[in-house]
Amino acid sequence: MKTILYSGLTANGNYGSSEAGQLPKQEEIDDINLKAKQAGNIIIGRKSYEIFKDSPIFKGIDVVVISSTSNFSGVKVAPSPREALDYLSSSGYDNAFIIGGVTLANTFLSQRLIKEMYINIEPYIENGLKLEPFDNKLMNLEFLSNKEIGNSGIVQIHYNLI
Amino acid sequence: MKTILYSGLTANGNYGSSEAGQLPKQEEIDDINLKAKQAGNIIIGRKSYEIFKDSPIFKGIDVVVISSTSNFSGVKVAPSPREALDYLSSSGYDNAFIIGGVTLANTFLSQRLIKEMYINIEPYIENGLKLEPFDNKLMNLEFLSNKEIGNSGIVQIHYNLI
Repeated sequence: MKTILYSGLTANGNYGSSEAGQLPKQEEIDDINLKAKQAGNIIIGRKSYEIFKDSPIFKGIDVVVISSTSNFSGVKVAPSPREALDYLSSSGYDNAFIIGGVTLANTFLSQRLIKEMYINIEPYIENGLKLEPFDNKLMNLEFLSNKEIGNSGIVQIHYNLI
Repeated sequence: MKTILYSGLTANGNYGSSEAGQLPKQEEIDDINLKAKQAGNIIIGRKSYEIFKDSPIFKGIDVVVISSTSNFSGVKVAPSPREALDYLSSSGYDNAFIIGGVTLANTFLSQRLIKEMYINIEPYIENGLKLEPFDNKLMNLEFLSNKEIGNSGIVQIHYNLI
């Protein structure tokens, strides 16, 4: 199964910590929506799901929320990344599309469960949380492409994890 | 005076902490060299200068090392960013070109002395030091352009600070 992580970072590489930082721009929402529909599914952390759960992104696809304690109606809840992937695999999907938050992203990275990444570099500098595996090992990436998405100065870089 | 900061970051937004991370690739050295020659000068932190001082980058341009204690032959030593800029301004330069290390970059950012930035996003994920102003205030950037430099997957993004 191809696992695809989608992250929005500030220009200085943080998950934004302010309201302005946390809310994706419309072109990012459109892009996330497109990629989620292509995969047919989305894996999301509990906190992020609670913030965004009414978004049209989640309509018509298999939604998997990672949580060991919560229940949400109409979506699959899996206690771990591995079990989320097993569920999607057994449901016949070839790709899994993973979005934030940062704790979930770092957990997938730490468990070496990511094969492909999109990083959106947003045009501001801010303090925030770091995208990184917990073991701090160097992970090499294969650069695939870069492009501006939308008109607000967001640069998207696409990588394979080697 | 237009102050231009040049930073190399990992894909997850850190100044790389390993040897592999710290050493710029040849295409970055060529690019730094070109931009330093265009400015006619370079401002660099003491530690970075000690590591790279034999590099051809420093030949034929005005080199300003920021240090309150050290002396180096053949280069100007200034005790602070402000005094480095004053020196270059009084020498007739219109632009100042500032490279690492991260402490120097963060000092310039914190003192709101940067007008333009180049950020090179390098194709790996690693723990490291953060590029950010000490006051953690949000700084908006105006996106100017992005491009791949060289053939090793480095994406360079060019911003104005607003």
